[in-house]
Amino acid sequence: MAAALGQQIELVAGCFSRDFPHTQQSGRELHLDPTRCYPSFEEMAAREVELPPERRIDFVSIVTPNRSHFAAAKAFLDRGFHVLCDKPMTYDVLEARELAGLVERSGLVFGLTHNYTGHPLVRHARELFRDGAMGQVRKVIVEYLQDFLVYPHEKHGQKQAQWRVDPAQAGAGGTLGDCGCHALNLLEFVIGPEVASVCADKSTFLPGRVLDEDVNLLLRLRGGGKGLMTVSQIATGEENALTLRIYAEKGAVKWAQENPNYLEVYRYGEERRTLTRGSGYLSAAAAGATRVPVGHPEGYLEAFATIYDGFVAAVRAYLDGRPLPMSEYAFPHVRDGLRGMEFIHAAVDSANRDAAWVALPRP
Amino acid sequence: MAAALGQQIELVAGCFSRDFPHTQQSGRELHLDPTRCYPSFEEMAAREVELPPERRIDFVSIVTPNRSHFAAAKAFLDRGFHVLCDKPMTYDVLEARELAGLVERSGLVFGLTHNYTGHPLVRHARELFRDGAMGQVRKVIVEYLQDFLVYPHEKHGQKQAQWRVDPAQAGAGGTLGDCGCHALNLLEFVIGPEVASVCADKSTFLPGRVLDEDVNLLLRLRGGGKGLMTVSQIATGEENALTLRIYAEKGAVKWAQENPNYLEVYRYGEERRTLTRGSGYLSAAAAGATRVPVGHPEGYLEAFATIYDGFVAAVRAYLDGRPLPMSEYAFPHVRDGLRGMEFIHAAVDSANRDAAWVALPRP
Amino acid sequence: MAAALGQQIELVAGCFSRDFPHTQQSGRELHLDPTRCYPSFEEMAAREVELPPERRIDFVSIVTPNRSHFAAAKAFLDRGFHVLCDKPMTYDVLEARELAGLVERSGLVFGLTHNYTGHPLVRHARELFRDGAMGQVRKVIVEYLQDFLVYPHEKHGQKQAQWRVDPAQAGAGGTLGDCGCHALNLLEFVIGPEVASVCADKSTFLPGRVLDEDVNLLLRLRGGGKGLMTVSQIATGEENALTLRIYAEKGAVKWAQENPNYLEVYRYGEERRTLTRGSGYLSAAAAGATRVPVGHPEGYLEAFATIYDGFVAAVRAYLDGRPLPMSEYAFPHVRDGLRGMEFIHAAVDSANRDAAWVALPRP
Amino acid sequence: MAAALGQQIELVAGCFSRDFPHTQQSGRELHLDPTRCYPSFEEMAAREVELPPERRIDFVSIVTPNRSHFAAAKAFLDRGFHVLCDKPMTYDVLEARELAGLVERSGLVFGLTHNYTGHPLVRHARELFRDGAMGQVRKVIVEYLQDFLVYPHEKHGQKQAQWRVDPAQAGAGGTLGDCGCHALNLLEFVIGPEVASVCADKSTFLPGRVLDEDVNLLLRLRGGGKGLMTVSQIATGEENALTLRIYAEKGAVKWAQENPNYLEVYRYGEERRTLTRGSGYLSAAAAGATRVPVGHPEGYLEAFATIYDGFVAAVRAYLDGRPLPMSEYAFPHVRDGLRGMEFIHAAVDSANRDAAWVALPRP
Repeated sequence: MAAALGQQIELVAGCFSRDFPHTQQSGRELHLDPTRCYPSFEEMAAREVELPPERRIDFVSIVTPNRSHFAAAKAFLDRGFHVLCDKPMTYDVLEARELAGLVERSGLVFGLTHNYTGHPLVRHARELFRDGAMGQVRKVIVEYLQDFLVYPHEKHGQKQAQWRVDPAQAGAGGTLGDCGCHALNLLEFVIGPEVASVCADKSTFLPGRVLDEDVNLLLRLRGGGKGLMTVSQIATGEENALTLRIYAEKGAVKWAQENPNYLEVYRYGEERRTLTRGSGYLSAAAAGATRVPVGHPEGYLEAFATIYDGFVAAVRAYLDGRPLPMSEYAFPHVRDGLRGMEFIHAAVDSANRDAAWVALPRP
Repeated sequence: MAAALGQQIELVAGCFSRDFPHTQQSGRELHLDPTRCYPSFEEMAAREVELPPERRIDFVSIVTPNRSHFAAAKAFLDRGFHVLCDKPMTYDVLEARELAGLVERSGLVFGLTHNYTGHPLVRHARELFRDGAMGQVRKVIVEYLQDFLVYPHEKHGQKQAQWRVDPAQAGAGGTLGDCGCHALNLLEFVIGPEVASVCADKSTFLPGRVLDEDVNLLLRLRGGGKGLMTVSQIATGEENALTLRIYAEKGAVKWAQENPNYLEVYRYGEERRTLTRGSGYLSAAAAGATRVPVGHPEGYLEAFATIYDGFVAAVRAYLDGRPLPMSEYAFPHVRDGLRGMEFIHAAVDSANRDAAWVALPRP
Repeated sequence: MAAALGQQIELVAGCFSRDFPHTQQSGRELHLDPTRCYPSFEEMAAREVELPPERRIDFVSIVTPNRSHFAAAKAFLDRGFHVLCDKPMTYDVLEARELAGLVERSGLVFGLTHNYTGHPLVRHARELFRDGAMGQVRKVIVEYLQDFLVYPHEKHGQKQAQWRVDPAQAGAGGTLGDCGCHALNLLEFVIGPEVASVCADKSTFLPGRVLDEDVNLLLRLRGGGKGLMTVSQIATGEENALTLRIYAEKGAVKWAQENPNYLEVYRYGEERRTLTRGSGYLSAAAAGATRVPVGHPEGYLEAFATIYDGFVAAVRAYLDGRPLPMSEYAFPHVRDGLRGMEFIHAAVDSANRDAAWVALPRP
Repeated sequence: MAAALGQQIELVAGCFSRDFPHTQQSGRELHLDPTRCYPSFEEMAAREVELPPERRIDFVSIVTPNRSHFAAAKAFLDRGFHVLCDKPMTYDVLEARELAGLVERSGLVFGLTHNYTGHPLVRHARELFRDGAMGQVRKVIVEYLQDFLVYPHEKHGQKQAQWRVDPAQAGAGGTLGDCGCHALNLLEFVIGPEVASVCADKSTFLPGRVLDEDVNLLLRLRGGGKGLMTVSQIATGEENALTLRIYAEKGAVKWAQENPNYLEVYRYGEERRTLTRGSGYLSAAAAGATRVPVGHPEGYLEAFATIYDGFVAAVRAYLDGRPLPMSEYAFPHVRDGLRGMEFIHAAVDSANRDAAWVALPRP
């Protein structure tokens, strides 16, 4: 749906399941050419590249469990296809580093669907912190709370839950992989790659589970600020409560994913301000990510579509022979993906050592 | 965007301006076949019908100023095309009645874009009131407040404002046409065609304007309930504040367009409840209009797309030789459009007679 | 409690019931001198005035049903006592006019407990509209919604309900008297005595009742603005939802009694502002009514105590031989009370004539 | 003001400053007997005890900087006076232990003004968790955010800031003492003394300060749950944002001091509930702390007055010869005070050891 919204992308081929008849059925429902519905991603990559250039796919979207991100991405990159990949980027940090190398050497476009950075007011918040304009960041609070795993869905056949609670498919992080890397990405999208070290305490409550269902973290920022992150999938009653609060020397911002059309901005001793999406006073960065007028709410799909828009722009530039440098990508990319994996790794490491401080590599 | 979201509709032809070069330019940007970009809607209707059935358009979307809705709709209906039309349906009640007759005689599918009824929680609210389950409706409050016309945009070249403040293009209602018929439709979608009579006071504040910028109305319902409606485009600071509150014998509901993923439900002496879009406890009607999971907000485009979905389903049924009766349409139709025009007419009539009570025709 | 909060008032005498033993019992619980617990207000007035001046009461608080306000007020005023009276001021307009004359001739201090005007942010809102600083007031929306009468309490022995639904005790207005005059007073406290005429529709839903349970009104303001008022005691689920919204040429304000520590201020094309009680940027009028620091919420009693404070200041000034002119009273007074009664009368009159426009006397 | 609200307490003596003329001036403003305005608390204790029992004070309220709490409390306890003391209870843990011993041996009533536990909905929340009714507490988030110290008030003569940033007067905790012990008390009031250990990171941003301005803590609960606490006085734009969220197996609650008349209760897969203060469905514990009807907001002073009410009830019981056991106190007492000091000590200790886990003594 998000890909369709921007009206620049057409789904023409795919592998939708490990079960080929299932893929064929999906293909029929999607009105796809049956010859372009493939039994495996390897075969898809191998056969698409044999099509004449004007007929083959331009890029692939990887939306499998974490375990197969790397292999799938590699299969397509190796054949010259651009890749848009779900997060967390890979199964572990080693794969992430290798993938980063692959992407950089290939010159191909690689995007990561940290979709929440597509929200206009998140982009505006980032502008507020550009070039230190808010002064020293002193305190950040990032939360990502869900209650998806309060119930043992994995014991009742729910596939989305099954792979998420299985370390063989999900990786070292449970909630850290599902929510934690989003939370880090959102924070660092706004204030820059500032997280220097983490001190994490992780928990698993439901019997039979091994991955973290809930993690609390202390953060230290390079510039001297401090922070808190909390991610959970057992926060009873919470749906998708990703929120960001940043308190800096000259002001503070608050944003909440569930009500994304508003940004609160506070300054010491002043009236509180609420900025509304679509307003004329917002930055060009916000305006450029805006689809419908003020007062007409945008949501999850709109922000996701904005990530697609950015990715498509980079693919078009590549096709036009003027590839963009990664620093001009208006979407999360392979370095963000590596950063996320390093964060998950550091958090798990910290938690395993009874909440010791663990540094993140300098980005 | 809303049409694209459902991935069932493809734009293949159009007339985008009264200025043909402009239409041609738009067509190029939309990658349309130049031979299907037309200088007028009359020519579009005449020439599309000459194409082989499998190549011609299935339906047309009319998004012109009110003045031309009737003529455009008639042009396409007369040639056997289904029509989706912007609201208010026509320029005046006479046209609306004529159009209703045309549609009913043709058997073609006619939809009206009262998009707000596409919201899942609006659909759930309707279920709560089905068959009198909430008891007597005693008090309704419907508001639709904007500040679009606080500034004299029409004097600064803004086309959207220019035709809206011009009675020759907009009709007898200004804000009544832009907001009032939406407000009525939303209310009656939930409680049924209950408004029996209105008592209206309309105002125009900015110099040079003649149409209503602001209207306050008392409502009387058939079942004995009472109500208030207020619509305004000079409510400084309001963006698109369409809200609905219904107080009935056994409970009350509150919904707000700007924050559409929540429905408040109150019952006397009980804890207040907030229902969230996507939740498992919601009705099938709500679930059927839901695109993304709980906690991932939907907005304006998603609801609009749901209207398109309903319309497309009716068109498909027609094409399959099993046309739906109008009573099974899951989208606003020509009778809703006629009702809206009767409402605008009654409100203007009441206001012109110093807020006399004016009855609406029985639906 | 509100009288105690300001620590300037001591309860020393009273008549607490029409049943003398009940009054005596209340007196014991309140540690009062038994000789100053009286069987009737007439006797209280007659006997208190016989006490030496330094021992007698300074003022009386009248908190009886509406029917007896006038007689009680007169009894005390005639003997030189200041009077603080509950609203609505009297049983009908005739009594209100006579009382206004009595008060003005006596030179005594008379206050009315329209307590909501004691809130600091209501006082700040008033400052924003002083001297036309917000430009023309174009649209006002005042609501006062409760659900107190959804249940037939009067049939189950609840005394507060019994007299309120009895026209012999309450007067011509039910909800109009209980809520309507508060709503008018709040509005006119902020924008001045601007309501020129009303067009009202009143309803009674529960069997056996005769007074209005719910009233919707259109308002016209002297300066050309328009408005809506709605008051109800059958709005299922509403508790004490008194809210005020004013849209003017240069800005708008919104305030809600249930969350009184915030004032929303909107200006066209600007960020929305939320003003918080206790902040340094607020007016002296707000600061003077503030008891505890910012972030420490004040509520109903605090605002009520501010009305007492203003009344006590006027009584002290009188006792000091420098009586304040009524125009300097920082609390609602007899002219506000008369205005309220005229409003109730006009609204009932309008409703009885099928929502005809009825003018309020020029204040 | 809070003491006055309950109408059971009369201020009759005091020492209001270290500067005797200042105390005398305050005494005149408060209409006190000049002979009962004392130059020091020691003299106050010594001379009040010499008055005839029926004339002397019943209890003393200690509202000095932390440094003198112990000495003042001891002076009055030693002479048989009951004591109500501001928090944190003492300067350090040693004093706290000694005071706890003193109080227990004396049998006198000692209360601590953790005023936020006086809110009716906090008391209701406690009932929800009584006897494990919500199942295992899995995750708690307690925040207490202010921006009081964003500005260097202490350099501009503000006395409240001066002693708070001075370790000689405030003790080892800055924000921990001002906000942290409140946060702990609120949490443990609701779920019981569950905090087993803390891992704290503290910060000081403004030049010249030495005490913590901001502290982030990980919490571990005895029952296996986890938590986060954050307290700050440099959270730009926050006023007095004390909030509590508890996620348990069967449900969750959310409460916010700045909007204290509401309690959010979530249960997995159910509609969200908002409970409103004063409602009939609330527990007796909530009802007993409620002063005004539903919809009429209570605030800071009302909750504070409820602490006074509880304290006065215990003093009355003592005077009546039936002293209450501490376990029946409806107000925070010396053991809560000791707990608070142990918490501050543990947090400072943890922070000084780079966020090591530090256990709290078993309560």
